[in-house]
Amino acid sequence: MIRVFVTGGTFDKTYDEIEGTLAFTDTHVSEMLRLGRCQVDVSVRTLMMVDSMAMTDDDRAVIVRNCLTCEELHLVVTHGTDTMVETAAALAAGVPGKTIVLTGAMVPYAFGSSDGLFNLGSALSFAQTLPPGVYIAMNGRHFAWDRVRKNREAGIFEEV
Amino acid sequence: MIRVFVTGGTFDKTYDEIEGTLAFTDTHVSEMLRLGRCQVDVSVRTLMMVDSMAMTDDDRAVIVRNCLTCEELHLVVTHGTDTMVETAAALAAGVPGKTIVLTGAMVPYAFGSSDGLFNLGSALSFAQTLPPGVYIAMNGRHFAWDRVRKNREAGIFEEV
Amino acid sequence: MIRVFVTGGTFDKTYDEIEGTLAFTDTHVSEMLRLGRCQVDVSVRTLMMVDSMAMTDDDRAVIVRNCLTCEELHLVVTHGTDTMVETAAALAAGVPGKTIVLTGAMVPYAFGSSDGLFNLGSALSFAQTLPPGVYIAMNGRHFAWDRVRKNREAGIFEEV
Amino acid sequence: MIRVFVTGGTFDKTYDEIEGTLAFTDTHVSEMLRLGRCQVDVSVRTLMMVDSMAMTDDDRAVIVRNCLTCEELHLVVTHGTDTMVETAAALAAGVPGKTIVLTGAMVPYAFGSSDGLFNLGSALSFAQTLPPGVYIAMNGRHFAWDRVRKNREAGIFEEV
Repeated sequence: MIRVFVTGGTFDKTYDEIEGTLAFTDTHVSEMLRLGRCQVDVSVRTLMMVDSMAMTDDDRAVIVRNCLTCEELHLVVTHGTDTMVETAAALAAGVPGKTIVLTGAMVPYAFGSSDGLFNLGSALSFAQTLPPGVYIAMNGRHFAWDRVRKNREAGIFEEV
Repeated sequence: MIRVFVTGGTFDKTYDEIEGTLAFTDTHVSEMLRLGRCQVDVSVRTLMMVDSMAMTDDDRAVIVRNCLTCEELHLVVTHGTDTMVETAAALAAGVPGKTIVLTGAMVPYAFGSSDGLFNLGSALSFAQTLPPGVYIAMNGRHFAWDRVRKNREAGIFEEV
Repeated sequence: MIRVFVTGGTFDKTYDEIEGTLAFTDTHVSEMLRLGRCQVDVSVRTLMMVDSMAMTDDDRAVIVRNCLTCEELHLVVTHGTDTMVETAAALAAGVPGKTIVLTGAMVPYAFGSSDGLFNLGSALSFAQTLPPGVYIAMNGRHFAWDRVRKNREAGIFEEV
Repeated sequence: MIRVFVTGGTFDKTYDEIEGTLAFTDTHVSEMLRLGRCQVDVSVRTLMMVDSMAMTDDDRAVIVRNCLTCEELHLVVTHGTDTMVETAAALAAGVPGKTIVLTGAMVPYAFGSSDGLFNLGSALSFAQTLPPGVYIAMNGRHFAWDRVRKNREAGIFEEV
């Protein structure tokens, strides 16, 4: 059994056709799992729907507490890419003994050209096979939480 | 470095608009890796483009030989689902010491509703983390080659 | 008010993931009208779901009778491309005084690369503006029923 | 022969994956015509790529001049929805004797859920069949330029 916690991020941005802007409504994770015909036992819970640039210390405390207190030992956290590394550090400090994989997308799932479905399939797989620890899984790669940074110019995660 | 061998299957079926039938042209794997913004070093080679129901022993020998002789130790093989288990057995008999993950799709990638991108992200991740052996990765799960069968009524792979 | 009669054809083919073949289930026309955020008053009714190569004289009689007896004066008929011209001739012989536009698709709507949505928007527009008569509307063009044939090699409709 | 002038608008917004914002790069109109397998003789020219809220009187003068001086008598202008009515009025004042159809989209074409392809098929059809004049074609309907307004709360165009 894998627990998926949803926190928002590019992954879940949609287009608000009245305002003509990007916005959050509901998460697409359940729809994505259906599309992937996911046969893994997954339980999805939305903790928040925020742009990771707007994520506060209180928000991170909510994520840490949920990862700590849930029964599952294998977790995926969907998250905006801009502060994914900070949340990974908070999880590493606060949640021992579990395999936690943070993932996200460079392009919203609701766009035809999103990497989200690829990343979700990848993150669920790493969550099943990596030893306990906190990881970031993006675009086919996985990184230990303290060996990664986002290269904002290139739009990719890279090892440090 | 991961080697991807393409053999066809539902994954790569397209719609022939002149004939009004399903057909094979080129593989979609490279396009899918671009969509997934894949940052893993992947080398793709098409071995054949066949429906797995039509795959012969000679075809399987070609797949085994290529997996055996290539330099890479981590491999993904895209394959039709109907005889994926047979090819996995041939690989287990013929290619020791490598991590080989077979994957495919229940719905062609060219269809909007395909599980292909999810499966490809998953297979590439399992190929990086599972110990040497031959596996089938479909719909978020992975199975050892001798512990799996396709349930054709349900359209899923299951443990035996 | 426009009446849309659905008869099947490539437009509505789907992929049967258990059988691995093309098949018909329900029509996609209502979903397409939602996607097009259609503001025209449209009433959709499915008459049959058949490949137009398999359409019989009885099937055509059903289409003619429905077009003749419905209240609306502006009609769109979705239809397979292979025998669209034959059905157009039957409608021209049997339904005077109405604007009837037959349309279809070269690629199923359920495929990402379909021309269906473009054709549906086009057919609904021609149905509102052309004088009474029977027409075929495909790929942006419209043809009088007795001035058109399908060029099967090229996969297009052309004037004769 | 139909001339299509591109001016930007929601139609052509894309997602900038480095900045995480909506942006303009190139137009999608040519790609959309390919997807629609458009058989009408269409010539596409990009005049500008702007959000219609940012469109100036000078921009409108450019559009009017191009519509006036081009050879074609049947024109489609892609345009943001927010000031589409203003540009239609400018065209009605400045370009006599041609059929000009303005169209756009409520959701960017690059999003899977866009009405753009439906609207483009519709606009090209109205441009072939309506008498000289300036029209707005959105979501299956067409309106004379002086009988329409955008209802911003509902996100639709309606007759006045």
